[in-house]
Amino acid sequence: MKGWLAADIGGSKLSAAAFDGERLLSRGQIATQPENGVADVVERLARLLEQTAQAACLDAQGVGIACPGPLSATRGVVELAPMLGWRDVPIVRLVSQRLMLPAILENDANAAALGEQRCGAGKGAKSLAYITVSTGVGCGLVLDGHIWEGWHEAAGELGHLVVEPKGLPCACGRRGCLEMYASGTAIGREARKLALARGENANAMDAKTASERARAGDDGYRAIFERAGEVLGRGIAALQQLLDVDRVIIGGSVSASMDLLRPALVRSAQAGSYWADHPENWLFSATLQPDSGLYGAACLAAEHFRGETKEVFHP
Amino acid sequence: MKGWLAADIGGSKLSAAAFDGERLLSRGQIATQPENGVADVVERLARLLEQTAQAACLDAQGVGIACPGPLSATRGVVELAPMLGWRDVPIVRLVSQRLMLPAILENDANAAALGEQRCGAGKGAKSLAYITVSTGVGCGLVLDGHIWEGWHEAAGELGHLVVEPKGLPCACGRRGCLEMYASGTAIGREARKLALARGENANAMDAKTASERARAGDDGYRAIFERAGEVLGRGIAALQQLLDVDRVIIGGSVSASMDLLRPALVRSAQAGSYWADHPENWLFSATLQPDSGLYGAACLAAEHFRGETKEVFHP
Repeated sequence: MKGWLAADIGGSKLSAAAFDGERLLSRGQIATQPENGVADVVERLARLLEQTAQAACLDAQGVGIACPGPLSATRGVVELAPMLGWRDVPIVRLVSQRLMLPAILENDANAAALGEQRCGAGKGAKSLAYITVSTGVGCGLVLDGHIWEGWHEAAGELGHLVVEPKGLPCACGRRGCLEMYASGTAIGREARKLALARGENANAMDAKTASERARAGDDGYRAIFERAGEVLGRGIAALQQLLDVDRVIIGGSVSASMDLLRPALVRSAQAGSYWADHPENWLFSATLQPDSGLYGAACLAAEHFRGETKEVFHP
Repeated sequence: MKGWLAADIGGSKLSAAAFDGERLLSRGQIATQPENGVADVVERLARLLEQTAQAACLDAQGVGIACPGPLSATRGVVELAPMLGWRDVPIVRLVSQRLMLPAILENDANAAALGEQRCGAGKGAKSLAYITVSTGVGCGLVLDGHIWEGWHEAAGELGHLVVEPKGLPCACGRRGCLEMYASGTAIGREARKLALARGENANAMDAKTASERARAGDDGYRAIFERAGEVLGRGIAALQQLLDVDRVIIGGSVSASMDLLRPALVRSAQAGSYWADHPENWLFSATLQPDSGLYGAACLAAEHFRGETKEVFHP
């Protein structure tokens, strides 16, 4: 059966999936182990893709690859991926030559945005912002049905939107970036601070544990999620004032805590945007997690190599 | 000769122009006098358009209309234009029936953005933000060669991007909107405050007089433009982090003071965005002022009614 392969390259995990024209047929995942070098990662990814295709009896026509960036989708090159230790890695050429298949690359947040727009919580929306809240905060934009790449192929840097001009220094060299306040890392940092101030075990504390404490009724941990939600809402307000997209979709590991983030997020989005009333109409959780990026990568491969403008896989 | 008519409806002036397939042939302008009602404005605008067409010996094929909003370009209706006292005015139908010509409507900032992209400082750029700094701050986005309207046809609300969450109350009902700090109105307000504090004549003070004082070496008035430039730069940084457009084009009456705004604007844009180095490559002044909107409206009419995707008029 003819179909498409998709890969999602992360700092800790390599994911692969096989799709026919209709749906995801098989799926595999291994550790990335970037410390063994690019060639090793590529070889193990290629084998994972081959196994995934075999498991689905798939005659693959092409591969879509989602990867952290900055990267150039048009050149097929990962320019800088600190979590992988990669710099100027021509991943499209490497995967393509190894598998003897055409390949296409996209930033992981953009791929996930496309996946959700084509097949997930964004179905029926012409435009959306997909926001992944995890270690950092990433964002992909789908405008008028297409990924908006930007002039430097770097649109959607919501995580590095400056929300506090004199705020915390960020690894990017700027101050007060949104992800310093609204990421899993930021929530974990504030939770450890609180634990320490209370004389609790700070080492065992992270965003997930903090969410459990907050849900159990601890106001201190609850306030940490409220502050993160408030800042995320400010970023969403800026996005909506400038872009006015149909929907905002939240994914990433911290989206499991949307119950804790949502009230403050909605309040501050409404304080800063004309279009934030009735959040039930525009604010959604991603529905393809953790496979949003795989769906998007498969759509890209199918649309690019088969030449059809819209490919929709049913989850 | 066949060609196109363009109208720009402002709070104080009605402008009209006639274009053949190549360039602006004739131009007219009268006072808007909105106090006499919609029918009167439409009738005088129609006569102005007829005179402009006659002066150019033009056989007009259609009319493009730029107007302040909020409006619906797709429905051809001005929903609310406080400066005109208009609410739900079906301007496309009114002008079209009076002139017996097809008409098309666009928000004035969007029309100016398209005009600059097709024929002005944005020629050759696939994407740009046009920012008009005047009484308020407006913004139009051209993405991939097309006006980006947004889901509520309200994209580009840069003037109402919240830059100070607890800042000055804005007429829009929110606090700390960008135009409360970076518009001609804001500069005039701060200049009057400074004049008053110094025991000077505050009534005679406005943004233009303040710019003359600043250029003459007065550090107090200079600092007012620096603060406005700083805030405008923050807005541009947000825009570039999210959208990463090829160029940012500044128009509007206050753009005559770009020499005073520019250094602080560039500094704060660079502090908040990855893509603000080498401003000579991305930051430009509009070149079709005050006709940017007329050029854009003519392009819209030509492209919409003739069905060609790109119409370029040479200024």
